[in-house]
Amino acid sequence: MAEQVDRTAYLIAPDPGAARLTRAVEGVDHHGNRTEIRVVEERPLTIFLNAQEIVTAMTIGDYPHYLALGFLRNQGMLAPGEAVLGVDYDEDLETVVVRTDGRTSYEEKLRKKTRTSGCAVGTVFGDMMEGLEGVRLPAVEVRTSDLYALAAKINRTPSLYLEAGAIHGTVLCQGARPLVYMEDVGRHNAVDKIAGWMLAEGVAAGDKLLYTTGRLTSEMVIKTAMMGIPVLASRSGFTAWGVEIAQAVGLTLIGRMRGRRFVCLAGEERLLRDADPADVEEESPRHRRKSAGR
Amino acid sequence: MAEQVDRTAYLIAPDPGAARLTRAVEGVDHHGNRTEIRVVEERPLTIFLNAQEIVTAMTIGDYPHYLALGFLRNQGMLAPGEAVLGVDYDEDLETVVVRTDGRTSYEEKLRKKTRTSGCAVGTVFGDMMEGLEGVRLPAVEVRTSDLYALAAKINRTPSLYLEAGAIHGTVLCQGARPLVYMEDVGRHNAVDKIAGWMLAEGVAAGDKLLYTTGRLTSEMVIKTAMMGIPVLASRSGFTAWGVEIAQAVGLTLIGRMRGRRFVCLAGEERLLRDADPADVEEESPRHRRKSAGR
Repeated sequence: MAEQVDRTAYLIAPDPGAARLTRAVEGVDHHGNRTEIRVVEERPLTIFLNAQEIVTAMTIGDYPHYLALGFLRNQGMLAPGEAVLGVDYDEDLETVVVRTDGRTSYEEKLRKKTRTSGCAVGTVFGDMMEGLEGVRLPAVEVRTSDLYALAAKINRTPSLYLEAGAIHGTVLCQGARPLVYMEDVGRHNAVDKIAGWMLAEGVAAGDKLLYTTGRLTSEMVIKTAMMGIPVLASRSGFTAWGVEIAQAVGLTLIGRMRGRRFVCLAGEERLLRDADPADVEEESPRHRRKSAGR
Repeated sequence: MAEQVDRTAYLIAPDPGAARLTRAVEGVDHHGNRTEIRVVEERPLTIFLNAQEIVTAMTIGDYPHYLALGFLRNQGMLAPGEAVLGVDYDEDLETVVVRTDGRTSYEEKLRKKTRTSGCAVGTVFGDMMEGLEGVRLPAVEVRTSDLYALAAKINRTPSLYLEAGAIHGTVLCQGARPLVYMEDVGRHNAVDKIAGWMLAEGVAAGDKLLYTTGRLTSEMVIKTAMMGIPVLASRSGFTAWGVEIAQAVGLTLIGRMRGRRFVCLAGEERLLRDADPADVEEESPRHRRKSAGR
């Protein structure tokens, strides 16, 4: 039970050994002894949509192409089916430019709204809620045996979290299989990177489940629904508005998932209880992850 | 050792019993039994500086006045000494308007930059880094006995975290005493609320320490330095850029602080080691908080 899950079980897995993602930093410990620890990198990445600067994200820096694509998609700035002509990343300038055919792009809309409201942040948020009105999530089955299997596999996967901490993880899953495991320092970058990968690869969303180490806030729920994924599960806790939105859009929301325990606060009808919780091992402290909420 | 710390020990303490901050939500547990849990609220709050819409923050909703003031101050949008004429909160409209004498306000600057860059986010960030150039943090002493005493007190203070989870806490401290303990769902709202309180009350920063449950990212370090507080401590881990900025501005940065253990990665010269770690109790699991990083 305690053996690690192999990287090759994933389409994309964390790469805790990648030199560019962590750095050794020197300091002192509580005894006053010199110590060296590995800490995760955090870099600014400015995302452009055509000629328009959209946002500067703080990111660990892997998969900038997916991050840019996924961010724009989850903000409703790329219409479904809008043609992406190219994604250009410049490591020195710390920029990524997503080029589209421009006809249906968000560019003009953003420019216009920006003039009246001063900053796109509030506007963008309003548009995200608008985008949710058209969302229809499919009535798939979610086997509790798959939930337990996923949590056990994800907890035993080598990750930057286990290597250096201070990072969140999000995993795209199908049935009992975790497919794509992204990590990032930025709160929602991990899920945006998954959205970008799905967009770039043309991956269907309706039969997937999203697992996150972070809290189930309104923004996490909105992003998951915007991606068309019907199930969101987390080790962490809920916010009231996150629950409300999940109930409104018909998304299955599962939180506080640790060992045999979990709570489902929306979309319970998708659950198929094919596992006896008594048969599920409690988490060993060694594999217990710490999270922002309980 | 296990008794709770009283609310009255603080100038402002969490109020886990406040009806407006949490909500009971019904769901099902892993056995399929109906269950009711308390979850924290999360509300949009749009912050205006005079006629200018600045940002929409997702917040638990307490202390909107302090949140608005502190956010603007930490973004460098309120110059030190700029006269604040009033702060008007409208609960129904979910807005808070900070009115200043306007002469030195950020309003025109923001409008101008917004036209060229499209969204203020990147611009604001640039200005935050600019603001750091003038920061000089005082060479105070930080007793390790105070660090241990603070962590023990904060862990034993009743909080929304202990009540409902999914929330971050930040505590303004002086010596061994925690003064103001703010919590919020939004990543940086808790520290902005403390900044707003300090601004409104005219509280000196040079003799204070900031304790946070969250990760020591660039943004946390920048905010702390902008507030003029020379020491930032956390239960959680570091990012590389957070460490780099702390070293550059001369801020003492202490992380992974649990029980007798901690790591100091910047500003070590302020530490006065007057406590023997061997005398410090390890955390009991009951008071152990879960955090986003280790």
